[in-house]
Amino acid sequence: MKQIMEMINDPQRVITKSWIESSYLSDGLKLEHGQADLLVLPKTTQEVAKIMHYANQNGISVTPRGAGSNLVGSTIPNGGIILDLSLMNNIIELDKETFTVTVQSGVFLSDLQQYVEQHHLFYPPDPGEKKSTIGGNVSTNAGGMRAVKYGVTRDYVQALEVVLADGTILNIGSKNIKDNTGLSLKHLFIGSEGTLGVITQCTLKLIAKPSIIETMIVGFTSIEQAIANITKVLQTLTPTALEFVEQKVAKWGENYSGFEFPLPDSQAYLIIMLDGNDRNAIDKQREQLLTTLGNVPYVIPKTPAEAAQIWAIRGSLVRAVEAVTQQDPIDIVVPINRIADFVNFTKQLEIESGVRMLAFGHAGDGNVHLCILRDELDEAQWAIKLQQVHDALYQKCHELKGLPSAEHGIGTAKVKYFNAAIPLENRLMMQKIKQSFDPNNILNNQVYIKGNHH
Amino acid sequence: MKQIMEMINDPQRVITKSWIESSYLSDGLKLEHGQADLLVLPKTTQEVAKIMHYANQNGISVTPRGAGSNLVGSTIPNGGIILDLSLMNNIIELDKETFTVTVQSGVFLSDLQQYVEQHHLFYPPDPGEKKSTIGGNVSTNAGGMRAVKYGVTRDYVQALEVVLADGTILNIGSKNIKDNTGLSLKHLFIGSEGTLGVITQCTLKLIAKPSIIETMIVGFTSIEQAIANITKVLQTLTPTALEFVEQKVAKWGENYSGFEFPLPDSQAYLIIMLDGNDRNAIDKQREQLLTTLGNVPYVIPKTPAEAAQIWAIRGSLVRAVEAVTQQDPIDIVVPINRIADFVNFTKQLEIESGVRMLAFGHAGDGNVHLCILRDELDEAQWAIKLQQVHDALYQKCHELKGLPSAEHGIGTAKVKYFNAAIPLENRLMMQKIKQSFDPNNILNNQVYIKGNHH
Ligand SMILES: Cc1cc2nc3c(=O)[nH]c(=O)nc-3n(C[C@H](O)[C@H](O)[C@H](O)COP(=O)(O)OP(=O)(O)OC[C@H]3O[C@@H](n4cnc5c(N)ncnc54)[C@H](O)[C@@H]3O)c2cc1C
Ligand SMILES: Cc1cc2nc3c(=O)[nH]c(=O)nc-3n(C[C@H](O)[C@H](O)[C@H](O)COP(=O)(O)OP(=O)(O)OC[C@H]3O[C@@H](n4cnc5c(N)ncnc54)[C@H](O)[C@@H]3O)c2cc1C
Repeated sequence: MKQIMEMINDPQRVITKSWIESSYLSDGLKLEHGQADLLVLPKTTQEVAKIMHYANQNGISVTPRGAGSNLVGSTIPNGGIILDLSLMNNIIELDKETFTVTVQSGVFLSDLQQYVEQHHLFYPPDPGEKKSTIGGNVSTNAGGMRAVKYGVTRDYVQALEVVLADGTILNIGSKNIKDNTGLSLKHLFIGSEGTLGVITQCTLKLIAKPSIIETMIVGFTSIEQAIANITKVLQTLTPTALEFVEQKVAKWGENYSGFEFPLPDSQAYLIIMLDGNDRNAIDKQREQLLTTLGNVPYVIPKTPAEAAQIWAIRGSLVRAVEAVTQQDPIDIVVPINRIADFVNFTKQLEIESGVRMLAFGHAGDGNVHLCILRDELDEAQWAIKLQQVHDALYQKCHELKGLPSAEHGIGTAKVKYFNAAIPLENRLMMQKIKQSFDPNNILNNQVYIKGNHH
Repeated sequence: MKQIMEMINDPQRVITKSWIESSYLSDGLKLEHGQADLLVLPKTTQEVAKIMHYANQNGISVTPRGAGSNLVGSTIPNGGIILDLSLMNNIIELDKETFTVTVQSGVFLSDLQQYVEQHHLFYPPDPGEKKSTIGGNVSTNAGGMRAVKYGVTRDYVQALEVVLADGTILNIGSKNIKDNTGLSLKHLFIGSEGTLGVITQCTLKLIAKPSIIETMIVGFTSIEQAIANITKVLQTLTPTALEFVEQKVAKWGENYSGFEFPLPDSQAYLIIMLDGNDRNAIDKQREQLLTTLGNVPYVIPKTPAEAAQIWAIRGSLVRAVEAVTQQDPIDIVVPINRIADFVNFTKQLEIESGVRMLAFGHAGDGNVHLCILRDELDEAQWAIKLQQVHDALYQKCHELKGLPSAEHGIGTAKVKYFNAAIPLENRLMMQKIKQSFDPNNILNNQVYIKGNHH
């Protein structure tokens, strides 16, 4: 690895095995740790290209890393190089005429959002973890709250600069709105979890910043009632966000964040966001919403600060749960008309298994996040129980024609259920594509898609 | 080919060389013709699988075909089998709960649109040729009028059933709204122009049918003025459609369709569509629009029939031009802030080259369609002139960072400019993907992407 030290020539950016902080050897859950020989922090695409070229020639594994906030083990290295993109964090260009922004891939989502909003523009994708990088968001096709109305990261990627395994630099896509020139390499890289190349630069589509954002929180006397209303709401209108939180988990979030939801007697909440530029239109949507919901208690926060508190509680839920007990996050998605079936099943499973589960999340697109709680189980019991609960949940998901991952990806954590859900023929084609892009199988070869058959 | 006759066992669905109608040997322009040994019209996915398996084992070329309305030569066969999907035209399922419809790939767009609208649902993609098939639309990622607001075919594909070159049947995607389970094979097939597999079934996303649709036609005293207003409009709001028509071509459309645009003294028109469910919101958009446009003459048709006439003229333009003279259609897209530059360049080129060009099209997304007119040129002159004009146009497109195809695809007609616009590294990766899917290079091997290096 001396060659890499010479290439980079900055000891602060090439860290050898024994000096690598353990958080670099893990993912967003920080439970499992891998090992690596070198942590490298490139600053330019050229540096990335040189490192990849060297690694490829020498068959050294490379694990690209943004902020390491993924929840599926995809940044847990198995030797070789950790390629940390976090120093590649320049905003390169804001092009107001084409409504695009171009950034290096290590820019934090929060920094991007703030930057474009200062210019009265808006980047809609909004995954819970704002200290994640744009390169990570693209690599996982991150979703988030506002996906119901605005779609996911995929819908906002105009162009990418990518370094392939052998060091070749590819420029994919453009600022053009339409593009029908050949196979879409761009869409292949989106959601590829670092298996096909290293994303070094992203050009993203922006929209005008909506001038009005309105939050509403609705309380229900039962979880079933809240869930029944999800479908009703979606049949009436398309809110910007539609989040479901059951009371148990809400309490934990309140404790953790120090804020409180209104309507404390409710068993479950829907938090709904509307946005736009037309006061009348939003008033009308709110009325439609209230008519649809019927006679249920609701609160519309009077100030942006009050609304922000509600979203802060929602945003804190994962961390709040983790402050109490170890948890395993589930990211199952089911067709929108199957949410009630799926959540009801989890309630039943909770009773049968004796393992506590908390449900919340992006109900508006069938993506109910579930935290499976370890509580007092010891290592061995937890392993057995978790396995049982997983098997039951993913089996049910499969029955309901759902998928094992809506937005977190497969990584190493979901491989078993990925293999069960995705037909062999499809996986073989993915493998062949992987081989085309990375014939020596050096990029993220620990995750779901193997470059060669093991 | 006897084996195929036995497989299908229906003489009306297996047509041998000398009995193949010449239109089957061509594309939507019907100018160039290829040759084929067999025309097969399968009725089921199983039949497609059997044919592909046989063709693959025997190295026989296969050209999948929907309605053959493409404008880039991609259904001009070079021997082998024409696989016509038009008898696979069943609507399989309307799922109102997940807002999806599942169809065989040979269903006409017009039939699909009509069917879902009867159920108060709406399929937004709207390319000019309604007698095109859904499989063709997916294979070309067709765009159309309503793309400004609603996006292109890609944005509405939930799932595909595909038969690979070797006869393997793949099921890709699902009815789930979010999906982050592995490499997106779905997005690879969208826009692949029949090079990776035969699409046999499509599940498409629908939306609620907007209850209000409003058309406005605006007249301008010069083309420049019309184009300057495109950008202004887009900075104010997102119309459903924003079409540009210059007066010369409008006149031809009027003659052909028998209808007339209002504001006959204008030099150019913008036709704008707004839609939605909220009368007030649309009224407000219209007011904003009029404020933005300033003091220009405009007409809002009073009845749906009057509006339909305006759209009928717009829809007839290609055919209207073709009724007068042979034309070559250009589908260049430029970044939205470069439309004026591009159209002005075409005006200059028209004078310099002496070749007439008519501009119209989907101005709202930078996709100005241009008809290059042959007029009285003889074969040899036309070939030379067309080449010169093409070279100049695509060179300008490249300078403006545009692309050679917004929505028609590359086929055989745009290969030269595809090769000039798309970097070699990207094309090599496309070729490797092609090889993975179709190692014997039997599928549409006449078009832009070659399975092996020639
Ligand atoms: C509290 C919390 C809330 C969350 N909420 C959401 C949510 O609402 N929606 C959602 O979708 N996700 C959510 N996540 C998951 C996570 O934040 C996202 O997956 C995020 O996109 C990861 O970005 P990152 O920069 O941390 O990437 P990392 O975790 O560093 O990497 C993720 C994957 O992408 C690869 N990768 C990273 N950068 C690059 C690059 N430049 N080039 C190539 N490959 C690269 C890695 O190898 C890895 O496979 C949440 C996580 C936490 C901890
Ligand atoms: C008057 C007119 C107006 C037009 N306006 C527009 C417009 O506004 N926007 C636009 O995008 N296009 C437009 N087009 C072009 C054309 O209509 C579209 O490209 C359309 O999507 C082609 O559909 P098709 O069924 O005719 O496909 P075909 O022409 O039969 O095939 C197109 C390509 O797809 C492949 N293919 C077809 N079906 C399948 C299948 N089932 N599986 C695998 N591959 C398949 C073929 O091999 C070929 O490469 C227009 C054409 C005309 C003649």
